[in-house]
Amino acid sequence: MDDIRFAVLGTGGIGRRALEVSQAKQGLTPVAACDRHGIAVDHDGLDVDELLAATEGNVASAADRREAADGRAATGESREPQTDGGTATVKQHGEQAGVVASAQARPTETPIADTIAESDAIDAVLIALPNLEHDFIPEVAAEFAAADYKGVLVDVLKRSRVIGLLDERPDAFEESGITFVCGAGATPGFLTGAAALAAQSFVEVEAVDIHWGVGLQSGYEDNRGTVREDIAHLPGYDNESARDLSDDEIEAIVDDHNGVIEFEDMEHADDVLLERAGICDAADVTVGGVLDVRNDEKPTTTTVTVTGKTFDGERATNTFELGDETSMAANVNGPALGYLKAGVRRNRAGEYGVFGPADLMPGF
Amino acid sequence: MDDIRFAVLGTGGIGRRALEVSQAKQGLTPVAACDRHGIAVDHDGLDVDELLAATEGNVASAADRREAADGRAATGESREPQTDGGTATVKQHGEQAGVVASAQARPTETPIADTIAESDAIDAVLIALPNLEHDFIPEVAAEFAAADYKGVLVDVLKRSRVIGLLDERPDAFEESGITFVCGAGATPGFLTGAAALAAQSFVEVEAVDIHWGVGLQSGYEDNRGTVREDIAHLPGYDNESARDLSDDEIEAIVDDHNGVIEFEDMEHADDVLLERAGICDAADVTVGGVLDVRNDEKPTTTTVTVTGKTFDGERATNTFELGDETSMAANVNGPALGYLKAGVRRNRAGEYGVFGPADLMPGF
Repeated sequence: MDDIRFAVLGTGGIGRRALEVSQAKQGLTPVAACDRHGIAVDHDGLDVDELLAATEGNVASAADRREAADGRAATGESREPQTDGGTATVKQHGEQAGVVASAQARPTETPIADTIAESDAIDAVLIALPNLEHDFIPEVAAEFAAADYKGVLVDVLKRSRVIGLLDERPDAFEESGITFVCGAGATPGFLTGAAALAAQSFVEVEAVDIHWGVGLQSGYEDNRGTVREDIAHLPGYDNESARDLSDDEIEAIVDDHNGVIEFEDMEHADDVLLERAGICDAADVTVGGVLDVRNDEKPTTTTVTVTGKTFDGERATNTFELGDETSMAANVNGPALGYLKAGVRRNRAGEYGVFGPADLMPGF
Repeated sequence: MDDIRFAVLGTGGIGRRALEVSQAKQGLTPVAACDRHGIAVDHDGLDVDELLAATEGNVASAADRREAADGRAATGESREPQTDGGTATVKQHGEQAGVVASAQARPTETPIADTIAESDAIDAVLIALPNLEHDFIPEVAAEFAAADYKGVLVDVLKRSRVIGLLDERPDAFEESGITFVCGAGATPGFLTGAAALAAQSFVEVEAVDIHWGVGLQSGYEDNRGTVREDIAHLPGYDNESARDLSDDEIEAIVDDHNGVIEFEDMEHADDVLLERAGICDAADVTVGGVLDVRNDEKPTTTTVTVTGKTFDGERATNTFELGDETSMAANVNGPALGYLKAGVRRNRAGEYGVFGPADLMPGF
């Protein structure tokens, strides 16, 4: 495939790892990266090593996160590494935390508008922002559409209901020329695609079960936003209440679970993404998992099982398992960039609108 | 997806099962089916039940197969059900064996030309013909290109070297407007796609191992052509020598193996299809399997393992397993139609040329 110039919105755990993984991929040139305070642009290709070294462990604070969630900042990044007391212990370069620590970056109050201003030379944008407000990522996408961006947007959002918000905007995406690939991380994303492929043996899919294991000891500091979003899936919590938890409260929840938190029947968009691809009913999809923030070893093997009936009347289960040594970061960012490439191909062929991972697989 | 009108070239085991599976799928209307002696066309949709009932166990003879292999017939179908002695024991309707047994069919000497004549109203053609001559399917494709067919061609070919023959013709396909999806059965096809997806955890793929199990007792009569093609993969045989084996000789080989034939290091196009998609070197792909023609139970579980390195330096193995209850027919024809749908989408967007299964997955 021809070279793809891409930008990353958000330079937290996912954004930075996406930049890193792209270095090992063919045909991907990162040309812009921003967080709420700054933006780095180089159309000849960012110096990713410099950017990572400057920003590692150096992202926006909890106060910034709440500001973003309140809608007072254009772009937010909640994967903030902090001590329990909320005081940033990370190294600080430049005048502010975040991407401006990189010598390639400059401060800005309007990072998304600044990215859009460069977008004639950007083929794809990975939206690696937290989505603690359900309409945050759809609103970001709407800004790109309003600016007549022609290209690909990819997000790694998780919640089923967000897909509906995106699906309300196909006209804006099509008029602008946007191919929006939604839910393109690990789950939904990688595992949704695996379910879609595993379904190919069947003429009727009866049940899809996605069960993930994540060991996040060494990645915990860099992925607190993800942990917070996961806690929002626990009984008694939702995005709003999880957003308002102090870091101490998060730690207390983690302690209550001895560092190992189990999730059942999560609201993960795999369900609606498989339904809209015609593979099964959303109700037939279950997602659960086990998160261990005190070990890197996975507490359970990440497994997708798809049970269905074949045309010749048999019932069977196809299975997809990820090796336990694969980290969450590997399973989010590889597929995110893989779907980004698939999205660019679609975009260049003139296919616009909203695509889920299963739409980028063989048809069912 | 909008409705797809498709034709099947060849009404042997694969062609007939593809028609059957399509009945359980959304958006697929079979409008033509042919073998070397006849063609059935109905642009409002074939009556598949009638066609299957009329032709089940009623396909062309060994003499026809050899005729086709010698190039004297335009389209061949080698999955002939016969007794050991070579005498057809199948029911015979109409004046000839094959598709003309259907009330919807008429005899023809030029089935491919007749299909091409209808192709303005055909979106996709599944080429379910044996390929005992390596250039047979490429030549069929060339006929469609020469006639300026605009649409999708899908084949379920197996041999690595055939991909090269197809790749020599991209200009003809692009000028005509053909999206050729090659190797879109079970393996290569379904399992190639699974390997491409499983690779997404990794930045470097070190090994892909595809190991299949097929139990074919009840499908044996209908799939002798497939068994013959498999025997061509055994040490000491090739396509030419396998083609020339009498049915008695085939039975003797099966007897020598007590009905269970193991294959190692097969020349299966998974290798070149993964390499051309940039996922790994062809040399890192191994394909083997076990065929049991005396049991329907699989002699081994069909498994794809992909071993690679993650961006963060781990080595791991991702695994895809098919449920033992899924038949070869389910795992060939579901994916073939799934890739056909993906091909039609590409074709309608104006993407022409040769695509392997891995090209229709997220990019690597």
